[in-house]
Parts: sequence; structure tokens; C-alpha cells
Amino acid sequence: MKPRFKYTVHATDGAARLGTIEMKRGEIRTPAFMPVGTAGTVKAMLPENVRSTGADILLGNTYHLMLRPTAERVHKLGGLHKFMNWDRPILTDSGGFQVMSLTELRKMSEEGVEFRSHLDGSKIMLTPERSMEIQRLLGSDIVMSFDECTPFPATEDVAKESMELSMRWAKRSREGFDSGEEHAARSALFGIVQGSVYEELRYESIDKLADIGFDGYAVGGLAVGEGQEMMFKVLDFTMPRMMKDTPRYLMGVGKPDDIVGAVERGIDMFDCVMPTRSGRTGQGFTWRGAINLKNARHKDDDRPIEEACACPACTQYSRAYVHHLIKSGEILGSMLLTWHNLQFYQDLMANLRDAIGEGRLTQYANSFRETYRMGDIDPL
Amino acid sequence: MKPRFKYTVHATDGAARLGTIEMKRGEIRTPAFMPVGTAGTVKAMLPENVRSTGADILLGNTYHLMLRPTAERVHKLGGLHKFMNWDRPILTDSGGFQVMSLTELRKMSEEGVEFRSHLDGSKIMLTPERSMEIQRLLGSDIVMSFDECTPFPATEDVAKESMELSMRWAKRSREGFDSGEEHAARSALFGIVQGSVYEELRYESIDKLADIGFDGYAVGGLAVGEGQEMMFKVLDFTMPRMMKDTPRYLMGVGKPDDIVGAVERGIDMFDCVMPTRSGRTGQGFTWRGAINLKNARHKDDDRPIEEACACPACTQYSRAYVHHLIKSGEILGSMLLTWHNLQFYQDLMANLRDAIGEGRLTQYANSFRETYRMGDIDPL
Repeated sequence: MKPRFKYTVHATDGAARLGTIEMKRGEIRTPAFMPVGTAGTVKAMLPENVRSTGADILLGNTYHLMLRPTAERVHKLGGLHKFMNWDRPILTDSGGFQVMSLTELRKMSEEGVEFRSHLDGSKIMLTPERSMEIQRLLGSDIVMSFDECTPFPATEDVAKESMELSMRWAKRSREGFDSGEEHAARSALFGIVQGSVYEELRYESIDKLADIGFDGYAVGGLAVGEGQEMMFKVLDFTMPRMMKDTPRYLMGVGKPDDIVGAVERGIDMFDCVMPTRSGRTGQGFTWRGAINLKNARHKDDDRPIEEACACPACTQYSRAYVHHLIKSGEILGSMLLTWHNLQFYQDLMANLRDAIGEGRLTQYANSFRETYRMGDIDPL
Repeated sequence: MKPRFKYTVHATDGAARLGTIEMKRGEIRTPAFMPVGTAGTVKAMLPENVRSTGADILLGNTYHLMLRPTAERVHKLGGLHKFMNWDRPILTDSGGFQVMSLTELRKMSEEGVEFRSHLDGSKIMLTPERSMEIQRLLGSDIVMSFDECTPFPATEDVAKESMELSMRWAKRSREGFDSGEEHAARSALFGIVQGSVYEELRYESIDKLADIGFDGYAVGGLAVGEGQEMMFKVLDFTMPRMMKDTPRYLMGVGKPDDIVGAVERGIDMFDCVMPTRSGRTGQGFTWRGAINLKNARHKDDDRPIEEACACPACTQYSRAYVHHLIKSGEILGSMLLTWHNLQFYQDLMANLRDAIGEGRLTQYANSFRETYRMGDIDPL
């Protein structure tokens, strides 16, 4: 019988770990990158093609799905996996982050967050209990605790208050999750460490979550504008105190160089809209940095986006063709670039896993950073 | 050695013919439907998936490609087939129709049409000779003569003048095409019958084209607002006079019921943006008529768009899911519906070919018309 949730470390290299998570719906190789399927679709991709890039797990957004088509409707239609035709693990966020970033007129209380739907203006209450119920109705494999993503910057007092609220909500999330017995028997619940950039708050958060007990722990409240240097600094003091026998997930991260640095610091799971979103705006990743396919310099270029890539965009089309599609506003441009970018991200994760397994992560990471130009540079 | 262009009739049923066109780049089963790849892409589709629906040939638009990325650039990049990753036959139109329908400030003369690009306002001259050159640079397999698509309605005098101009241009197209010897040795040239709704003008046009001599003959100037009844009336008197030993192509047609009626009248080839365009606006074809997936009635419907369809949209997803995608403005909605609609059109063509081969076309066509509700009806 497949285990509910079994995390195994196969090798370590510095703080980095090569592992697997075994679940009812399949195995997740870590460090793992989870493509984002916001509204029940990884934008511009068929799920079988997302799988072909090497993705073991997708992320779904509770906030978007609860509003449309609604969790109850997805449940009635057989759950999110059947609805969107993805039979492997799905991690769902709690909805908390999107409520704070996408809605107006929201009202926070101990109970939860009251907000107005950005679709029809209706008044909705999201609580830890309701978030657990929604994620259960969706049929999520990895459920995230409902928390408040502390805004950046925040004073230590504000960050402390916010973290403590999140910890009380984490407890209620645990109870809400466990009450759905049938679902709890085949899925996992992750807690989320908050505490902003404050060492003591992060430690306190870790201790409180450990007391409650979760299948995995996420680092929340990063990638919210603090910059890579500060993010790495927070990871530098947070990661050594994180639980060792469970996966560690850095939410909403990131750019390829963010991921490399975070893996070196011991992160096992990532999600980010970057490969899909940038695929729709003309950006393509290469091992020498991201290029802007809108740029006229590509119009006569018969080379692939990235020579070393096995995706259809690179094996079957030229930069000139993709440039033409993007300039013409053709959907196929978004399709090909999204596919390529997802392949690039999964190739990066495979490279990182190989390097950890062979004890040469530092060498790989340094060589990556030597070649990969960060920022919005357009290398030829 | 593969023939340049060999049309074989395998069976007839009334005026309808079951046939094949053999060309250097592959075989075309007729009656054939050609998906439209306007700007070097069948919108929202990978070419291998277009092929999987049963398409033997695509249509490319000379007007769009000459403006962007330009015929010269496509040629330099290895031709349209390589550029868009489609190695089977491509038919290109002459650009004439789009110049008339998409540009302003155009000036017609005996020489050709002068117009301003809708992209950058630059002044461009399109003549029969230049149209042939562009189609040669693209590497087209079936080249269409440059003509004027007579607007509807037109008085007999206007229609006559327009048709006679098109016939002079047809002669110049033939000469222009033949002058590109290498390309002419591996591709085909079609003439286009004009004459609006006037019997004598159509006959005159057929005779003039026969004198010049082409590999195939298209019926032009239809599907321009005259309605199905008038279109069929024109076909009723035109088709019996059309050449028998070459394929007959009805340009820009059409709705499924247009195609059934035109096949019954002896048409062998079709092209239309309907399956692709309607796929991007939420319309899906079923054997009981087209349905509007935007409609809220589909939001809880776990049935496929069409039970009898083998496309991924129908075998892997529910109407409820496609409805959700369309309502959410998701690209995957356009992708799935376009794929389904192209599959529907190719299934229709396969059904028509089977029926002709088995001598039961009338029976098939009547049964199709009994079940298929025309217009913008939304049958459950």
C-alpha cells in the first residue's frame, strides 16, 4: 500500500538534501519545483505536457478556485484532480496570501478574514476551518495551514503579533484538517513558519509549529519584496533550526538563482508563477540568463531559445519563429515559451538533484552563477 | 518518385467525388478541410496536434506573412514549412482577398493593388507577379492565382469587369508561377472562378481559366454575405461546368452544413477560420449543433462536449471544466476548444469521404441535417 506521506533523504551535500516524498498519488523528487495551476490549469499548458517536463506535483490556488468554479462545484465534479486531468499530487495554498494581495475592503479578526470577491463583490469569510474544508473539497494532497503572510517591511512588534496569530491559526488548521478523517488519512498538512526578518520570531514560530506537529514545514513571508540578499540572510539563520525529518518548502520562490541559493541552504520545495507568467510575456530562460523574445534582435535568429533544451520549442522552432509569434500576439507563442520555461525550471531541479547526489552542489551552483546573468539582461 | 500533383478520383456519388491528391510533401484525401494557419500558426495549436485530427494540408495567408515576418525572412529561415514545423502540403492564398478586406486607402489598377500595411502604414504594391513571388518564397505547395474577390452584391456589369480583370491576372499569375522553374517543378497552381451570382459570367470565367490551364480550380467570390441558399444556387449552375479531372476548391467555406451541401455539389476542398476562431470564443461543435460553452447551463455538466469525439477535450475533460476555463479567460480553454473543433471538422470530412466511398452520401447528408441544428442554437 502506498504511504500517506513518507519523506526519505537519500543524500545530503552541505545543508542541501536529495530526497523523495512518497504519497498515495505518486512520488515527488526533491528538491522539487511545483508549477502553479492557479485556476485549475497551468496556464497555456496541457497537464500531460507539464508532466513531460518532469513535474511531480502542481500547486493549486484555494482563493481562485473557491470563487470560481467554487470548491463545492469542483467536489461535485469529482475533485480537482479529475476536473483538471492531473492524477499526481497537488499542493493547495490556504487562500490567505491571495486574500491579502488580491482583495480590497478585507477585515482581519481573530476568527479569520472577511473580504469581497474580486469577481462579483460578494462578502466572504475565510477562516482556518473554512480553508481546511475548501482544500478538502478540492481533494488536495498537500494542504497548507491558513496563515497571515506578514507584509514586508514590518516592525518587530507587528511581525510578532502577526506570527502569533498565524500560530493560533496553525493550531486551528491542524484541528480542522484532522476533523476531515477520510481526507486526512490520505493527504498531508504543512505548517508555515512566519516571523519576518527577525531571528527570534522565526525560532519561536518553528517551536510552536513543532509542538503542533505537521508533515512538512514551509518558510512563509519571503519573496515579498525583501530582495534576494535579505531572503538568503533569513534562510541562513532559519534553516539550521528547521525540522530535519520533514520537507521544507519556500513559498512563492523564485527566480532560477533564488532557487539555487535556497537549495544550498536546505530548501526542498518551491513554487512560482515565474516560468509560466514570463512565458506569456515573451521571456525565455537560458543557461546564460533570461532573454526577451520580443526583442527585434531575435527576428532573424535561426537558433533555438536554448541549445541544451529538449522541449518542443527548442527542438522544433527557431528564436525567429517564437519572436514572430510573440510580436503577432499568437497564443502558440505563449504555449511554446511556457513549455520551454517549465522545462528549464525542471531541468534546473534535476541538475540540482544530480549535483547533491554526487556531492558536487557547491561546484554546480558556482558554475551556474558564473554563467547565468541575473536581472533583465538579454544575452546573445 | 512522388508526383508533383496527381489527382485521382476513387469513387463518385452523385456530383460528389472521393479522391486523393498526391504531392511531393504528402497525400491529401478529398473532400478535404484545410485548417487556416494565418500568420504561420494554426492559432492555439501545435502542428503535430493539427495533424493528429486528420488534417492533410494547411492554408497560409500570403497577406499576413508578407507583412510579418515578410516572405523574404521566411525564405531565409528555410521556408514556411520549416518555420512553422509542418512538413506536409501547404496551400497559400494570393493575398488579394485580405488586401481588400483588411486594408484601407487601397488603389486598384490593371497592374494590381496598392495599399497601406495595417501594421506600420507602409505603402505596398501587390500584383499577380509579386503574389507568385511571395508564395514561391514561402515555399507553398498549392499556389493560388492572384484575383479580385468580387464584392457581394455586385451588378452584372461590375461583376463582369471584375471577373475579366481576374482572368487577365490569372494569366499573369500562370506566367509568374511558371517563371519560378524550380518551385514550379514541385508545386501546383490553382485558378479561381469568379462571376458573382451570374451564370454566364461563371461559365465565361471557367472557359477562360481552362484556356490558361491550372492544376486545380477554385470557386471564389462566395461566402461573402450571399447566404447559404444563394451560395448553393451558384454551385448548382457552376459545378456541372467545372473541370472534372482536377480538384475543385470552395474558398473560405464554411459552416458544417455549408460543407455537407457543397460536397454534395461536387466540391473537393475547403478552408475556413470557423473551427479555430469559434474555438477561441467559446463555441464548440457537436453533431446536434454548435454549443456556447460560455453559457452558465454548462457549469455543472460533467459530460464531454461531444460523446462521439476522440479529441483530448472530449476524452479528458467535462463541459463544466471547459466552461470554467472560458469564463476565467484561460488560454487552455481556447486550446481545448480549438482542438475539438478541428477534430469535429476532420471527423465530418472523414464521414463524408466514407459515405461517398460507400455510395450513401445522400443518406448521410440527410441524416446529418436532421440532427444538426443550424444557427446559434445551444442544444443540450
